[in-house]
Amino acid sequence: MSLLCLREICRKMRSIKQTELEPLVRRANQIRTEVTQGGRKPCKDVIDVSWGDKHRGGVQPLTFVRQVLAACLYPQLIHSYKLPGDVRQRVQSLLGACDGGSVGSYTPTGGISYIQCSVSNFISRRDGGVPSSPENIFMTSGSQRSIMQVLKMLADFHNQASLPTGVLTAVPTYPSFKKILQRLGAAVVPYYLDEEQGWAMEVEELRRALQASKGVCNTVALYVINPGNPTGHVQSRKCIEKVIRFAAEERLFLMADEVYQESVFGEGSEFVSYKKVLSEMGPPLSHTVELASFHSASKGFMGECGLRGGYVELVNLDPAIMKYAYTIFSTDICAPVTGQLALELMANPPRPGDPSYPVYTQETQSIRAMLVHNMNWVPEFLNNIPGISCQPMMGGAFVFPRLYLPQAAIEKAKVVGMQPDLWYCKRLLEAGVCVGPGCEHGQKEGTHHIRLCVMTPVETMEEVLKRLKNFHLHFLKEFS
Amino acid sequence: MSLLCLREICRKMRSIKQTELEPLVRRANQIRTEVTQGGRKPCKDVIDVSWGDKHRGGVQPLTFVRQVLAACLYPQLIHSYKLPGDVRQRVQSLLGACDGGSVGSYTPTGGISYIQCSVSNFISRRDGGVPSSPENIFMTSGSQRSIMQVLKMLADFHNQASLPTGVLTAVPTYPSFKKILQRLGAAVVPYYLDEEQGWAMEVEELRRALQASKGVCNTVALYVINPGNPTGHVQSRKCIEKVIRFAAEERLFLMADEVYQESVFGEGSEFVSYKKVLSEMGPPLSHTVELASFHSASKGFMGECGLRGGYVELVNLDPAIMKYAYTIFSTDICAPVTGQLALELMANPPRPGDPSYPVYTQETQSIRAMLVHNMNWVPEFLNNIPGISCQPMMGGAFVFPRLYLPQAAIEKAKVVGMQPDLWYCKRLLEAGVCVGPGCEHGQKEGTHHIRLCVMTPVETMEEVLKRLKNFHLHFLKEFS
Repeated sequence: MSLLCLREICRKMRSIKQTELEPLVRRANQIRTEVTQGGRKPCKDVIDVSWGDKHRGGVQPLTFVRQVLAACLYPQLIHSYKLPGDVRQRVQSLLGACDGGSVGSYTPTGGISYIQCSVSNFISRRDGGVPSSPENIFMTSGSQRSIMQVLKMLADFHNQASLPTGVLTAVPTYPSFKKILQRLGAAVVPYYLDEEQGWAMEVEELRRALQASKGVCNTVALYVINPGNPTGHVQSRKCIEKVIRFAAEERLFLMADEVYQESVFGEGSEFVSYKKVLSEMGPPLSHTVELASFHSASKGFMGECGLRGGYVELVNLDPAIMKYAYTIFSTDICAPVTGQLALELMANPPRPGDPSYPVYTQETQSIRAMLVHNMNWVPEFLNNIPGISCQPMMGGAFVFPRLYLPQAAIEKAKVVGMQPDLWYCKRLLEAGVCVGPGCEHGQKEGTHHIRLCVMTPVETMEEVLKRLKNFHLHFLKEFS
Repeated sequence: MSLLCLREICRKMRSIKQTELEPLVRRANQIRTEVTQGGRKPCKDVIDVSWGDKHRGGVQPLTFVRQVLAACLYPQLIHSYKLPGDVRQRVQSLLGACDGGSVGSYTPTGGISYIQCSVSNFISRRDGGVPSSPENIFMTSGSQRSIMQVLKMLADFHNQASLPTGVLTAVPTYPSFKKILQRLGAAVVPYYLDEEQGWAMEVEELRRALQASKGVCNTVALYVINPGNPTGHVQSRKCIEKVIRFAAEERLFLMADEVYQESVFGEGSEFVSYKKVLSEMGPPLSHTVELASFHSASKGFMGECGLRGGYVELVNLDPAIMKYAYTIFSTDICAPVTGQLALELMANPPRPGDPSYPVYTQETQSIRAMLVHNMNWVPEFLNNIPGISCQPMMGGAFVFPRLYLPQAAIEKAKVVGMQPDLWYCKRLLEAGVCVGPGCEHGQKEGTHHIRLCVMTPVETMEEVLKRLKNFHLHFLKEFS
C-alpha cells in the first residue's frame, strides 16, 4: 500500500467517525469477561439498554411468528408436528408464493409479490382505506438499507450541482442516518426538536434550518422519525399536516421513518402515518408531495432484528424515477426471505377465531403491558433523581433524559478528552449499566443526555434504574 | 420534480443499463400466465435455466440444514420433536452464540463471533492448515453485497486521482459485477478469457488489458471468478500462481470470487483457493499481496440463495485499512442471522458418526451425481447440435456454449434492434426454455453465446436440451 493511499485512508477515517458507542460496547464485553472470570467489580453483570433490540433484552419471540418461520424452513413439520391449523395454512400459502416452493430461492427485486400485496393491504387497512400499490413496495434487508437506497437515489439525482445534497435531519436523531449521509458525501442539515415541548417538531425551526443551509448545500429532502428515536415523542396529525405543507412549499422529498408505529401507548397519543395525512389533505398535495415511508420487522411486537426485514413504500414518484428506484434496489438482488416472511406475518397477524389468536393476543398483551408500564414509570422515576429531567414518553422504544452535570465533571471529561455524557456513560458502565451517550444522537450545545431502551422486561428495568440512581447520586456527590 | 432532475435521471438511466435478462423474465412470466389460462402456446410451460438457483430449479434443500434452521427459529422443537442428536446439539450451540439466545437479535458487524471462528477454521482446513483469522471474516447478506463493500472501499481509496478507479474484469463475467462498478463510478477494464482453451485465463491478456487501460482509468484491482461463471472453467494451481505474480508485480488488489468452490467435478480438475496458493508461494508474496476471497451459502450443495448469507476473507490488509473496512461493513448493521447460520452449517457439515451423516451424505451424493452427469453430458449433447459448440465443463453451475448464427438471423435481429443472442433467447422462450443471452455477460465482438444452469435435475435438463435442439434446428432452417 503506497503512502499516498495511507494518507487518503487517514482522511477518510476522519470524515467517517466511528460510533461513540463502540468503546462502550467493547468495555461492556470486557467487564462481562472479567465478571465470568471472577474479577472483582462493583457490579455482578452489565445490563445493556443501549440497543433497541427486544430479544437481546430478554423479551421472548412470538410463538405464531416462529412456528410459521420454522415450518417454512422445514415443511415436513406441517405433517409431522402438532401445529395450529392457521400456522399450517399460512406456511402453505407462503411456500406457494416462493419460487420452487422453497425459502432458499431468490425472489424478485421488490420482494415476493404475494408479500408485496400483503404489505400493501396492511398499509391500506392501517390508513383507513387509503390506496396502496404493491409495486410501490420494496422489501430490503432492514429499514437502514431502505433508507440508504432512497438516499442514494436522491444524492444521485441532485449531485449535478457543485453543492452537496443536503437532508434536513432531526437533532437528536437515529445516529446511523448521519453515517449514511456522510458515506454518500451528502450533508446533514440539522433541525432541533424542542425538548421543553416533549421533543416536538416545529415548522419554524425547519424553516430556520433550511434557510441556514442555503449556499452550503442543496437541501432536497426532510427526514422525520415518528414515533421519535431517541425522543419517545409521537407527532400529532396537526403537526404532520404542517410538516407536509412545509415540504410541499419547499419542494422537499419527505422521508418518514415510521418503524415504531406499533409502539404508541402514551395517553392521548395515536400513530397516524404521513401517507394517511397526506392523502386526507387532498389534491394538489396528495398527488404531488413525494414521500418514502419506512417500516421494519425489527421493531413492534415481533422485534425480529436478526432476520433483517424492512420495507419502504414510495408515494407520488414520477414513473421515470420509479424505474430508477428499481435499478437501485436491484443491486441487492433480493431481501432475505425469512425477513420478507416476517414482514408478511407483521402485516397479517392472527385474527379473532384463528387457532393461534389466543396465544398471540396473550403474548402481545404482555409486551404491551410491559411497554405501557415502562413508558409511564421510567420518565417518572428519572424525574425524581436530582440532576436528571426526562420528558414524558408517548411511543417508540427509548427515553432520552437530560443530565445536569456538575461543572467539575464537565471539566474532568475535558481533561480526558471525552464528551461529558460519553464519559458519564463509561463511568456508569463500571456500575453495571450500558446506555448510549447523547452526543451520539446530537443535542443542543451545552446539554447532555443519555438514551435508554425501555423495551426491557420490568424487573430488568427496575434493576437498571436502581443502579443508575445509585451511580448518579454518587457521581453528583463526587463532583459537587 | 423539476425538469432539471428529469434530465439528470435520463442521464443516469442511460449510464446504468438494466439487465438484458429483464424482458426475458417478464415474457417468461407472461407465457406462464397464458399457459395457466389455457392459451395456445407451442410449449406447455417455460423451464427457466437462466438463474443459478438450485431450489427454483427443483433441487431439494438439505434436511440437516433445514432441521437446524427450523429449530433455531422455534427452539421448542428441541424438546417436542424427534430431531437427530447432532441437530439438537448444533441448535443449542448456535443459540448460545446469539445474543439473548435468539436469532432475532442483532449481531456484531462482522457476524456472530462463534460463526466467524467456524468459518475461519473451515478455511484453514480447506487450505491444508493455512492460518485464517476470524477477525478477517466479514459476513454479509450474500457475496454480491461483500463484493460491493470491497469495491466501495477500493473506489474510496483511489478516487483522489482525476481518473476513475478501474478493475480488471473477465469477459465473459458475472453481470452484476459490472453493474456495481458502474454504480460506484468505477471503470470496467475488460480482459478476455480464451474460449478455445476452455475459457482459460492468460496472463499475457491481463497484461494487454492493463496496458490498454493506462490513461483511461487508475486500475487498482483484478477480479477473478474461479470456478468460472458463466464459463465452467476451473483454474489450475499453475495459472493461479501466474496470476498472483502478475498482481504482485502490478500492485493490484486481488478479488477472488470463489463461490462455486464446492462444485468442481470435472475429471482432473480440483479447486485450489487463491489464499492457499498465495500462502504456499511464501514470502514476500504471501505477506504482501492483498486478497479478498468471497464465498456464499447460495451455491454449493445447500443452495440457500434466499437466506442471503455470504462472507469475505480479507488477507494481508494494512491494519488501518481493516479499520476502514469495519466502518464500511458496519453501515449494514449486520448480516441476516439465518444466512449466518447457513454459513456455519456449510463450514461444519455432519461428520462420519454423526446421526445426520447418512442422510446428509445421501442427499449431497445425489446432488453430486446430478452435477457430474450434467457436466459431462450437457456439453457433449450441445456439441452434437449443428451450429453450437460448447467447451468442456470443469466446475461451477453454468455452461456458456457458442452459437454460430446464420447471417440472415443476425440481420433480422439488427432490424428489431436487439443483440442477436438476446433475440435468439426471446425466440427460444416461445419454445418453452429460458436461458441467458451472452451479451449480458460480455463476449468477443461478433461471437454469440447463451448461458444455461446445469444445477438442474437430470430429467428437467433432458427436457431443456430436447426443446433447445428442436428450436435450434428449426431456427437454422428458417434462416439459411
